[in-house]
Amino acid sequence: MKQATARACSNIAFIKYWGNRDETLKIPMNSSISMNLDGIYTETHVRWDDALASDELVLNHQKVTGQALHRVSEHLSFIRNRLNINTFAYVESVNNFPMGAGIASSASSFAALTVAAVKATGADLTERELTSIARLGSGSASRSIPSGFVIWHQGHDHTSSYAESFAQPDYWDLVDVIAIISGEHKAVGSRMGHTSANTSDLQMARVNGAEERLRICQQAIFDRDFSTFADVVEYDSNLMHAVMMTSRPPLFYWLPTTLTVMDAVRHWRSEGVQVCYTLDAGPNVHCICTRPYADVVAQSLRAIAGVNDVRMATVGGGAQLIK
Amino acid sequence: MKQATARACSNIAFIKYWGNRDETLKIPMNSSISMNLDGIYTETHVRWDDALASDELVLNHQKVTGQALHRVSEHLSFIRNRLNINTFAYVESVNNFPMGAGIASSASSFAALTVAAVKATGADLTERELTSIARLGSGSASRSIPSGFVIWHQGHDHTSSYAESFAQPDYWDLVDVIAIISGEHKAVGSRMGHTSANTSDLQMARVNGAEERLRICQQAIFDRDFSTFADVVEYDSNLMHAVMMTSRPPLFYWLPTTLTVMDAVRHWRSEGVQVCYTLDAGPNVHCICTRPYADVVAQSLRAIAGVNDVRMATVGGGAQLIK
Repeated sequence: MKQATARACSNIAFIKYWGNRDETLKIPMNSSISMNLDGIYTETHVRWDDALASDELVLNHQKVTGQALHRVSEHLSFIRNRLNINTFAYVESVNNFPMGAGIASSASSFAALTVAAVKATGADLTERELTSIARLGSGSASRSIPSGFVIWHQGHDHTSSYAESFAQPDYWDLVDVIAIISGEHKAVGSRMGHTSANTSDLQMARVNGAEERLRICQQAIFDRDFSTFADVVEYDSNLMHAVMMTSRPPLFYWLPTTLTVMDAVRHWRSEGVQVCYTLDAGPNVHCICTRPYADVVAQSLRAIAGVNDVRMATVGGGAQLIK
Repeated sequence: MKQATARACSNIAFIKYWGNRDETLKIPMNSSISMNLDGIYTETHVRWDDALASDELVLNHQKVTGQALHRVSEHLSFIRNRLNINTFAYVESVNNFPMGAGIASSASSFAALTVAAVKATGADLTERELTSIARLGSGSASRSIPSGFVIWHQGHDHTSSYAESFAQPDYWDLVDVIAIISGEHKAVGSRMGHTSANTSDLQMARVNGAEERLRICQQAIFDRDFSTFADVVEYDSNLMHAVMMTSRPPLFYWLPTTLTVMDAVRHWRSEGVQVCYTLDAGPNVHCICTRPYADVVAQSLRAIAGVNDVRMATVGGGAQLIK
């Protein structure tokens, strides 16, 4: 049987991906950096099956059709073309975190899907090529395949736009303490958001400085220099949300409690706690801290009205086959 | 006796002033547009007095020294030099709105101070020159001297940077319904903020588009085209706050309720209410609406938890002598 199961973590970007140079190939406007989130993952089983008349998708134990199936099917078609597969696939995917909890699932989903679908064919592609393929499904999925701290090189075409690890999970004991502020579905998904990024007058200014911020961020990780890391990570997150809020139409992902938490994090850091914030295209606040501060940060976040839940993740490994 | 009393309204900018090309002369990075706020004003009495050994300032019935006096004294010194005055002045200034209510007082204060101090000398300067002088005290004060809807031309030196009216108060029945969210003192005053504006990677992008936004905004006012007006006013406010949040260090003026109100305003407009928001360097939300919607907007704002007070102002006239 041509089947395989893979697991891939979610990741949180420190230098953000927002907007594409090429929408179809998902060549991003700038390179980005992230860490994988240990324990927050998607497990995906793929079976290439001659008996199927179309691709099938079971997501969190429910059969899915429509747009979600279409997006998966498009991704499978790229893999079919690349590896000369002529059959449809049965895909079963489970997130170990609740849907709509405000944790993005597209990165871990397309990373796991890519690894499972390719391995199920028996093909032996390099990790680098797997990251390029995952990128086609969801840009940030490319960063969920390599281990630990990952850089996605923007590149200029399909093969030059790929991700690789630059430090293993145990290199620096960072913890992402996630303040979950809303479980509501996003008003505008990040996929739509990427296409609107270039409508903001501020996007090019964000992009022009990205390479320098990335260099500073990567060096701060190499040096385990939390103060420099915190400044550039918060700055980069603020820049991305500035672009979002000035897109046309504007995208406001922040909720009132989001502001409260960001303000609290800045205040805690001013008191010596090694913590900084970064946000995805949503209202949740990822509070990145060093290990010794993780528990007190989690406890303090739980005490803030409007924080519904708190979840912790250390630095995670790369995508892996589990069957 | 060489004395005079003047009254000047506060104003709210539709195309914002944020950052200077020349800090000393307060030559702004871009031209700006505002409307005066009727009924929200400062009344200032100035007496040039040979008997004084230094300038004196009584602000809201309290004698003031230190930084506030120093700033007024600097402004008086410019007027002394310009008009060959050799005496100190006694200045008494009263705002008809509470200090720390989150309504900026520097625009109305320096407009009233300029008009009173100049008129008290007996000199007869043009309105244009008065606006240039007021600008030296506080950039936005230049816009509180002409009547109604006002443009401040950025210019390139002291005399070319001035403000003038382009439509009288009765030209368009706009109302500013101000949601007062905090009476707390600003963490960073707007004067400091202006000097930090150019530390944001986004400032030049904001500035580069300002002339076009100003043209669109002014035309929308001429045409009484609320829809176009609303889009450009909110966009410009978002751009300024994007610059603030990405300055180093970042300036976050928004409070949680600020976000709630901005979101509500966008929602009300989507339902057909002629209302849009704009914010100064503070958490209060200025909800600009056409007259027929003012009461329902005020009522709806009062129903939002965290809105401490609501204040309404129609379009105000220019600064005037009152004694």
